[in-house]
Amino acid sequence: MIDFYLNETESELKKLFSEKKALYPDKLFSAMEYSVFSAGKRVRPYLMLLSAEFCGVDCKKIMPLAVSLELIHTYSLIHDDLPCMDDDDFRRGKTSCHKAFGEALALLAGDALLNLAFENMFEAVKNNPELGLAASYVAKCAGAEGMIGGQAIEFSNDEFDEALITELCMKKTGALICAAALAPAYVCSDRKKFNCLGTFASAMGLCFQLKDDLLDEKKCEPKSYLGVMGKEHTEKTVAKLGELALKALEPFDDADNLRDLCAFLLNRNK
Amino acid sequence: MIDFYLNETESELKKLFSEKKALYPDKLFSAMEYSVFSAGKRVRPYLMLLSAEFCGVDCKKIMPLAVSLELIHTYSLIHDDLPCMDDDDFRRGKTSCHKAFGEALALLAGDALLNLAFENMFEAVKNNPELGLAASYVAKCAGAEGMIGGQAIEFSNDEFDEALITELCMKKTGALICAAALAPAYVCSDRKKFNCLGTFASAMGLCFQLKDDLLDEKKCEPKSYLGVMGKEHTEKTVAKLGELALKALEPFDDADNLRDLCAFLLNRNK
Repeated sequence: MIDFYLNETESELKKLFSEKKALYPDKLFSAMEYSVFSAGKRVRPYLMLLSAEFCGVDCKKIMPLAVSLELIHTYSLIHDDLPCMDDDDFRRGKTSCHKAFGEALALLAGDALLNLAFENMFEAVKNNPELGLAASYVAKCAGAEGMIGGQAIEFSNDEFDEALITELCMKKTGALICAAALAPAYVCSDRKKFNCLGTFASAMGLCFQLKDDLLDEKKCEPKSYLGVMGKEHTEKTVAKLGELALKALEPFDDADNLRDLCAFLLNRNK
Repeated sequence: MIDFYLNETESELKKLFSEKKALYPDKLFSAMEYSVFSAGKRVRPYLMLLSAEFCGVDCKKIMPLAVSLELIHTYSLIHDDLPCMDDDDFRRGKTSCHKAFGEALALLAGDALLNLAFENMFEAVKNNPELGLAASYVAKCAGAEGMIGGQAIEFSNDEFDEALITELCMKKTGALICAAALAPAYVCSDRKKFNCLGTFASAMGLCFQLKDDLLDEKKCEPKSYLGVMGKEHTEKTVAKLGELALKALEPFDDADNLRDLCAFLLNRNK
């Protein structure tokens, strides 16, 4: 991965948090900060910045949306870890937010991160009205049609077939990957790149989740693609989706960084 | 209260939900709908519409923000009722959301309502860019500087003095009242009305919470203004704040509806 984009993301997140520190109640701020700065891979903002580069959208302009996407991802992990959801005591090798700060603060830290993501996007749209459509798309991907919808499918069904488990993954994980890849395409007006990024993102989003399942094979959850479809089928699907994603990029000479990210996500071992 | 504004709010909320029904997972949608349509008084959208009238802002234009404010208020109640927060089994005489749908779905319904509020505001700003500042202000009031900050103060402190309990109330309840009253003032450009509505809203926001405490005296919570300051002091403060709110409106002949709302909120008995 390209250090420049990762460093920029990190420093923008740090800047945002240093601006807010004095304005938020101490413990709430600490719980938010604890979860945002906890060795996340920053895959979603990274993908958004690569997609922006591909679309000819200035990195600085799209950055507030990239940062917001990471805040949304982080809030979803905090809420997912709560006892009434997955009840996980650990996240990325650290104590999960509610174990460190208590359930009430963790719930509120999640709420506050989602809210901050949107505050941040409103601010960005105020300064750059041409980000409006992109921000609106990110909001839709994060909500009940997208990520939250996927979480709800997980917690309101007991039986899964291929269609339902695929929908769950496409929404719960895929929606924010689509937000990352497509938001910049909403800013530029290149219809061809927009369409290709759409196919690329849908394939990569699902692929990313299935790869995660395979890497955490020991934990094989019954409500995962791996749990429902088995190892062999999951491995085949990952390979097929990877090919599909790369095929979508084929017409473009200037998509090498996206191709590299695709290879990185497919070949990662953690 | 003026039926027209209440009916418009109700029908906009219904329209929004009927548009979303087919797009959301069934149970998630039901949990969201259950909580939004449960005999809420719609004080916040109502205040926003009265304030818009006072500011000369078209009711139809501000409506998406009014509706969003009610969605934000509703999500905060769902999360507040969860076992890790206030652990309330009832809300407005009905079973609370997590008792009716389970904790996971209730948590997600709250998240989804917050998200939908922002989606709805982005949509509105796209159609009417002059709503940008107002939407941005609503977002700030809802977040860790405002309402969520107030909830966090409640759950991260055990000892309260007058300053801290006042800050809690001003943020937890007052922030959304300020959002309602001031959002329209961000759309019009009447500096005098903006300032007067600022004073009015700060006084009314606190007053509204203290009146609530007094109406629910039997339940007197230790982390309430009433619990910390006692009945006599609370009653005096309510009266003082009511006067302050009305005084702020004094220079204006066209503020009768706001004056009526103020009287209604002060004299209500539930």
